[in-house]
Amino acid sequence: MELWFREVENKDTFIGFRVNSVLHRERSKYQDIAILDTPTFGRMLVLDGIVQTTVEDEFFYHEMIAHVPLFAHPNPRRVLVIGGGDGGTVREVLKHDTVEHVDLVEIDGRVIELCKQYLPELSHGLDDPRVTIKVTDGLEYVKTVRGQYDVVIVDSSDPLGPAVGLFTEAFYRDVAGALKDDGVMVAQTESPWLTPEVVRDVVKAIGNAFDGHAYLFLTSVPIYSLGQWSFTMGTKGIDPRTPRIPLDEMPPIETRYYTPEIHAAAFALPRFTRELLGLKA
Amino acid sequence: MELWFREVENKDTFIGFRVNSVLHRERSKYQDIAILDTPTFGRMLVLDGIVQTTVEDEFFYHEMIAHVPLFAHPNPRRVLVIGGGDGGTVREVLKHDTVEHVDLVEIDGRVIELCKQYLPELSHGLDDPRVTIKVTDGLEYVKTVRGQYDVVIVDSSDPLGPAVGLFTEAFYRDVAGALKDDGVMVAQTESPWLTPEVVRDVVKAIGNAFDGHAYLFLTSVPIYSLGQWSFTMGTKGIDPRTPRIPLDEMPPIETRYYTPEIHAAAFALPRFTRELLGLKA
Repeated sequence: MELWFREVENKDTFIGFRVNSVLHRERSKYQDIAILDTPTFGRMLVLDGIVQTTVEDEFFYHEMIAHVPLFAHPNPRRVLVIGGGDGGTVREVLKHDTVEHVDLVEIDGRVIELCKQYLPELSHGLDDPRVTIKVTDGLEYVKTVRGQYDVVIVDSSDPLGPAVGLFTEAFYRDVAGALKDDGVMVAQTESPWLTPEVVRDVVKAIGNAFDGHAYLFLTSVPIYSLGQWSFTMGTKGIDPRTPRIPLDEMPPIETRYYTPEIHAAAFALPRFTRELLGLKA
Repeated sequence: MELWFREVENKDTFIGFRVNSVLHRERSKYQDIAILDTPTFGRMLVLDGIVQTTVEDEFFYHEMIAHVPLFAHPNPRRVLVIGGGDGGTVREVLKHDTVEHVDLVEIDGRVIELCKQYLPELSHGLDDPRVTIKVTDGLEYVKTVRGQYDVVIVDSSDPLGPAVGLFTEAFYRDVAGALKDDGVMVAQTESPWLTPEVVRDVVKAIGNAFDGHAYLFLTSVPIYSLGQWSFTMGTKGIDPRTPRIPLDEMPPIETRYYTPEIHAAAFALPRFTRELLGLKA
């Protein structure tokens, strides 16, 4: 038989993926979780019908959400990842020798357990002794920590369901509080072309929480159609647009997407995106 | 009723678009042509089942294929566009005051006629007095001209059906011959992630035809999922990676995507793409 999964982009557009098999399906306390095996993308994690990550293309996303903030910070030692239960972001963070400790705060323990079982390529870093997993609500967690982290990475799903609070100014203010004085944060912030209002509002919220220091950057993620995907950094003064390490002195971390040249290029924004953010065209 | 158009990306992945109406459908001498009206993308041109361009997102593609080579050349006056019967590329080329003449060579006159009728936002430039339309095979045309053009733009469909010859070294050698001594060419060259072999082979073919001067650049086009789309320039020595005009001296051409900063950033390649092309990682 032919088995197809249909991911709805908006009510008028969807992507269809042929499915070899449904490896797991359940409704957790928070969401519908599925692990599918597909021919082009390999195994994929699907939450509430939206693809979160796939084995074949995950490096586009995880390398950019991790290495841009970690190479922007002068000496990242303590890192907090909110969401990211698949482990891909933590795996990339751990490539930095400066990193002494990573806290992963994921609201849904079932995502972690299932990714450990079905997506070892992503989740293997979660077993590293430098990592502490906290199965709790990131929104609440950041209220309880002050001045502890060098980098906070908000690796959330879309602003629907359990992740909606992770796109608010109140949350980003708490993140700012959880950071040390030279700390930086990054969040995945959706598609400037497909959902421009979401991007505009979230960049404004981060700017408000970080005294105007909000920096949007772009990459392309095959599975996050259609078009470019955005991330936004908030900092306490650090300008993240150039990596602290020159191209020819980059430490030998293994990447498939990130390079220092890509780091700088990612902050170049198309004119329509600049206009969306109210930047000088 | 619900009407949906399914664009096949590969045999295991497709994109579904809700269709308001099928404005036109015919089989020309060369291909199946459809003009669809869709809610998210507006009107779209579909050739042999593949979306070529849409009113809402076409600026990503047409601005990058036109402005990167035209701003890389010191003084582009005579331009040849091969393919591009929708007119979007010609419209962008005409924004450059230096341009005195544009030849559009499109094999399928029905594409031009239908785009004039249904996609005036793209095709209006075709009526400009600087433009000459030649309905003929670009493969044959470039054999008949020598040293005439400053810029040649190969705005083709995918390397299937009528466009297959436009991805060969023999063709790029003829393009090199059609260019003046400081001329530059650009071609759309597919997706490095989805069809890496096609990209590798075409960049090699352009490099062979241009004594090693092949330069791949990337952008993102919402409708050309999944992920980044590539273009490759061939030059006779010009390095196209920085626009000749500094950011603050750019002439006032109206764009929605292109900026000089985007121009430079587009040549930054992900590590997997550098490795695909045999560049130093």
